[in-house]
Amino acid sequence: MTNMDSVSVRVFSLNCWGIQYLSKYCPQRYAMIGEMLCKEQHDIVLLQEVWSEKDYLFLKKKLASCHPHSHYFRSGVIGSGLAIFSKHRIRDTFLYRYSLNGYPYMAHHGDWFGGKAVGMAILNLGSLTANVYVTHLHAEYSREKDSYLPHRVVQAWELQQFIRHTSAGADVVILGGDLNMHPQDLGNRLLRAYTGLQDSYLETAKFDGCENGMTLIADNPFISKKELVPFEKGIRIDYILFKGSSKADVHCDSMSTTKGSVPNHPFPYSDHEALTAELRLEPRTLAETGSDRQSKNKDSATGKLAELVDIVTEARTEVKVGLHCAERMRYTAARTGVMGLALLFLELVIAAVPYLALGAEQPFPRTSFYLLAVLCFAMLLTTSMLYIFYTMELKSLQEAEDQMRLGIGSLQEKLKGFRLAELHNPSRRPPEVQEPGAFEPEE
Amino acid sequence: MTNMDSVSVRVFSLNCWGIQYLSKYCPQRYAMIGEMLCKEQHDIVLLQEVWSEKDYLFLKKKLASCHPHSHYFRSGVIGSGLAIFSKHRIRDTFLYRYSLNGYPYMAHHGDWFGGKAVGMAILNLGSLTANVYVTHLHAEYSREKDSYLPHRVVQAWELQQFIRHTSAGADVVILGGDLNMHPQDLGNRLLRAYTGLQDSYLETAKFDGCENGMTLIADNPFISKKELVPFEKGIRIDYILFKGSSKADVHCDSMSTTKGSVPNHPFPYSDHEALTAELRLEPRTLAETGSDRQSKNKDSATGKLAELVDIVTEARTEVKVGLHCAERMRYTAARTGVMGLALLFLELVIAAVPYLALGAEQPFPRTSFYLLAVLCFAMLLTTSMLYIFYTMELKSLQEAEDQMRLGIGSLQEKLKGFRLAELHNPSRRPPEVQEPGAFEPEE
Repeated sequence: MTNMDSVSVRVFSLNCWGIQYLSKYCPQRYAMIGEMLCKEQHDIVLLQEVWSEKDYLFLKKKLASCHPHSHYFRSGVIGSGLAIFSKHRIRDTFLYRYSLNGYPYMAHHGDWFGGKAVGMAILNLGSLTANVYVTHLHAEYSREKDSYLPHRVVQAWELQQFIRHTSAGADVVILGGDLNMHPQDLGNRLLRAYTGLQDSYLETAKFDGCENGMTLIADNPFISKKELVPFEKGIRIDYILFKGSSKADVHCDSMSTTKGSVPNHPFPYSDHEALTAELRLEPRTLAETGSDRQSKNKDSATGKLAELVDIVTEARTEVKVGLHCAERMRYTAARTGVMGLALLFLELVIAAVPYLALGAEQPFPRTSFYLLAVLCFAMLLTTSMLYIFYTMELKSLQEAEDQMRLGIGSLQEKLKGFRLAELHNPSRRPPEVQEPGAFEPEE
Repeated sequence: MTNMDSVSVRVFSLNCWGIQYLSKYCPQRYAMIGEMLCKEQHDIVLLQEVWSEKDYLFLKKKLASCHPHSHYFRSGVIGSGLAIFSKHRIRDTFLYRYSLNGYPYMAHHGDWFGGKAVGMAILNLGSLTANVYVTHLHAEYSREKDSYLPHRVVQAWELQQFIRHTSAGADVVILGGDLNMHPQDLGNRLLRAYTGLQDSYLETAKFDGCENGMTLIADNPFISKKELVPFEKGIRIDYILFKGSSKADVHCDSMSTTKGSVPNHPFPYSDHEALTAELRLEPRTLAETGSDRQSKNKDSATGKLAELVDIVTEARTEVKVGLHCAERMRYTAARTGVMGLALLFLELVIAAVPYLALGAEQPFPRTSFYLLAVLCFAMLLTTSMLYIFYTMELKSLQEAEDQMRLGIGSLQEKLKGFRLAELHNPSRRPPEVQEPGAFEPEE
């Protein structure tokens, strides 16, 4: 914080890779992270994959003097893994749990048990109200055959919905986290285009860090190069995004990432690189609010809106693919269940024969009879649970698709208004333009 | 809609009791509801318990000309049961699924499968932006021994959080639905005190309907009087709540409920009574925004804030009771699971004896052996699933409790500021007072 006019805020984000017993050197790395955070004294620290509450409590104790305010977001079976530490008092927190997050039977991927979510904290930065979000989306295990893509797109959709609808009262919006999406991935474009959030890596005046801002790099000793194929050097999937408002401009003065190693330590903080962004918040005077915006918007608003319509349409297509897939899976579960039931019925009939035709011998060896019955029951149980699960998945996908359809309709309506306004008065700005790049669909 | 200055909006809310095959006269009642809605032409229709999508589609078709805009909120296994129909274009929708909603094994209560949620629709009423919410909270099956109370309190907490955080950009807020809470129940007080929403039954200038505004009445032929004990005549659990903003005042001109029967029909629309509120929205001029508010706030803001602190504290206590209960249940599940495992182990040891001591005879009859093994496995499976479920319940309760603790801290901080300001300058209004009754915790 420098003076009353302009406020400087240092934001830190790191995926801590904190799976107890499984992640390498976990306690040592948390000790390193704690020390570094104490020394660096960022204003806001956004952490992901803090899976164990013990580790959160360790950090809380360690950072008690430099970051007296914190919140650990709890959800799912294991937790959301999300935590925020802050120099500034946290006024309020809220949590949105994504409706889709992988499959419970994909236990080796583990995402479902994590209860992925987006956490929000409201805090004051100088005279400004900041909504700070931290999130972690579903991992991408294979880029070629990404069966989780519809889930991740729905998560990105829900994330942008949550941010857009909860940030109307905020002067500044900051989002940090592991989005598990490359910069130009569908969900990422959707998020940025709809909310108007800007990427600090792209906007920064100064940058110091890995090539292309990568946050998952081949040089990190915890990364197996196989995982990164076909991106030999690494990928950029962690972000710090930000947005101003009519009450404040936000600029990114500098940004940095760690580079796969930490001086004087045998290993890095995590398998992901850490991000630090230095944001400068400039409260706007009333006079500025209207004027400097007009020229900027006139040219780009229509184009941006048209682009947004395309992106949402693309997302909707992806969700439809997910719908087909989930429907097929549910059908398979139902069919298998019916087969199990038929088998059980058949078995019972065969077993009943000796009772009906009194003289006949029991055709079944007892052991096989019981084993088969158990198998049938197991089949029935599993398929009914799967059927319920896929039904829930279908509902969530349908809900997202419906919201998207409605969103596209509103955006097109607005676009029509823009174009009409341009047609009738090409020198005037389009009606009801709000934030540059942020579109609240409006009639 | 009357003129540009003042906008009149008719809002309708009904719990449709639409359980396919189980609810009595379901198709007939939907036909009646559809006809009535066509005739009455409300601006906004908020429906709950529309469990079947077919019934939603029936209404959508029937209301196509009078209510061309609609949204059906999908979640959970069966759905959320929530639907909105509107004369006015719906610009945007969003859904928040409550983190707690009963137990899947309480299948006869069925709430868990319903995926209870709060749906939001943003629409334009004249020149004003309205955020319209529809919700349905967990039912109360026994008033004396209400084991779902912590869940309902957490739902009320999440509902107020969702409304408060998403409505900053709204000029008018309207909430309709079946809250399953009496007017003075904890969750209801929490909702109204934190959001500043007003009860149209209490605020209305004219009222026509059941005694005390009851919405679940003994005179309704679908209601068994046993359910209502100890409230002989009925209870009020359905509401239409509203709130203005700095840009608009909202008044309730009249309110009505159905009275347990429908003229010319053999039975009523539902087991709940329907609510209709006529709201008058008055856009504010800039001059009004500040002045008329001051005197009103000075006296009541401190008192209201202190009351809110008490209510949130009470809610937090209730959530703590739920936490203890969930911990005990999880412990029981774990203990039973361990017993199952021990039994299985014992069985295997006994079965292994003949193999080890070669001469000995198999001590087990084969059938009992397999049956016991199956029993052990079933025990293990059930208890692990219960353990996972209770862990998720614990996480959600803890998250709500943490949010409440933080909220209380912020409110107390603000209260301190108010009291200091009053002490130093008793004639001045407290600092940063926003909406009457709505408290955004602020430093």
